[in-house]
Amino acid sequence: MKSYRKELFFSTHKRRQLINITPEVEACLAESKIQEGFVLVNAMHITASVFINDDESGLHQDYETWLERLAPELPHSQYKHNTYEDNADAHLKRTVMGREVVVAITNGKLDFGPWEQIFYGEFDGMRKKRVLVKIIGE
Amino acid sequence: MKSYRKELFFSTHKRRQLINITPEVEACLAESKIQEGFVLVNAMHITASVFINDDESGLHQDYETWLERLAPELPHSQYKHNTYEDNADAHLKRTVMGREVVVAITNGKLDFGPWEQIFYGEFDGMRKKRVLVKIIGE
Amino acid sequence: MKSYRKELFFSTHKRRQLINITPEVEACLAESKIQEGFVLVNAMHITASVFINDDESGLHQDYETWLERLAPELPHSQYKHNTYEDNADAHLKRTVMGREVVVAITNGKLDFGPWEQIFYGEFDGMRKKRVLVKIIGE
Repeated sequence: MKSYRKELFFSTHKRRQLINITPEVEACLAESKIQEGFVLVNAMHITASVFINDDESGLHQDYETWLERLAPELPHSQYKHNTYEDNADAHLKRTVMGREVVVAITNGKLDFGPWEQIFYGEFDGMRKKRVLVKIIGE
Repeated sequence: MKSYRKELFFSTHKRRQLINITPEVEACLAESKIQEGFVLVNAMHITASVFINDDESGLHQDYETWLERLAPELPHSQYKHNTYEDNADAHLKRTVMGREVVVAITNGKLDFGPWEQIFYGEFDGMRKKRVLVKIIGE
Repeated sequence: MKSYRKELFFSTHKRRQLINITPEVEACLAESKIQEGFVLVNAMHITASVFINDDESGLHQDYETWLERLAPELPHSQYKHNTYEDNADAHLKRTVMGREVVVAITNGKLDFGPWEQIFYGEFDGMRKKRVLVKIIGE
């Protein structure tokens, strides 16, 4: 069994932002030379997400509106977590979106359906944060 | 390390439908002859889900009602994604339910608790769609 | 490839409770002697969750309030599942929080960001329930 590990770094210019990281994950997979196995991609921070969905700007605006409805940022005072912090909503938004994805590797490629793309979902950004890519296989 | 891959196909007769796919996944596992490892089962489409819960019809009706409350289908015009499409709600519903499950394999069986069953959750159906089963182990 | 399996048992004194199980998972990993691989930690019951977030009591109160807003327990009669049972809300809450986490293992340690902790999320407790820890790697 072979294994591979890399950290990816992101610093968004907005509090909330979605970034397509599929090319970075594909580059890791090529570097690993693993042909069959699993890749785990996870946010290393608990106010961010890694998820798979469509790279379509209308849908990304829908995510913003929808997450603000399910777990609104304001008023900050509505959350017990927000005594010394203001990011309780980001913890909840990341919970809806998920921490991680596991993707099959087949013949050295991400084994994806037609529209699957991997996103980093930042919900408390404007600072340097990390994503872990770990691959195991042969 | 051994690996195994199979695609399962589903075409529902309703827009939204939950299908118990545990027998199909067990058949894949038997065919793989893998005794110890992990099986990844994921929707290959971004408006469908694979998740684990109870095979109980009342609960399945509760899921329908609850998902319609969290991410209603109508009016289609409430979503920016719905310019040439009408399935933004299906992207959001799948986000709540999750893309994938990873299940342990022990002694050649799905290592499940008493009521765990694997479901395909379709939220934009009435056309042929795919689920990936990928197994790694020994 | 090596594999390791252990069940952890929990019996909460409240219907809903969050328990930090990171030390138990670290003990499993040490016992497994696996240096590189993946650990899967999943609830074996469908009204409980395993998830990763912050060990901060204010946030845990926010989770309770938020989950009660998204999927309220009462009245029990609002759910079709609640004919002979009263835990439909627990199935939905666990759906939001997720069944499982997959964590990378690097150099014999959980490969975590600064604040990541693994929690057992119980939503229908006061009875003995199980979590599965399964590790594969080398």
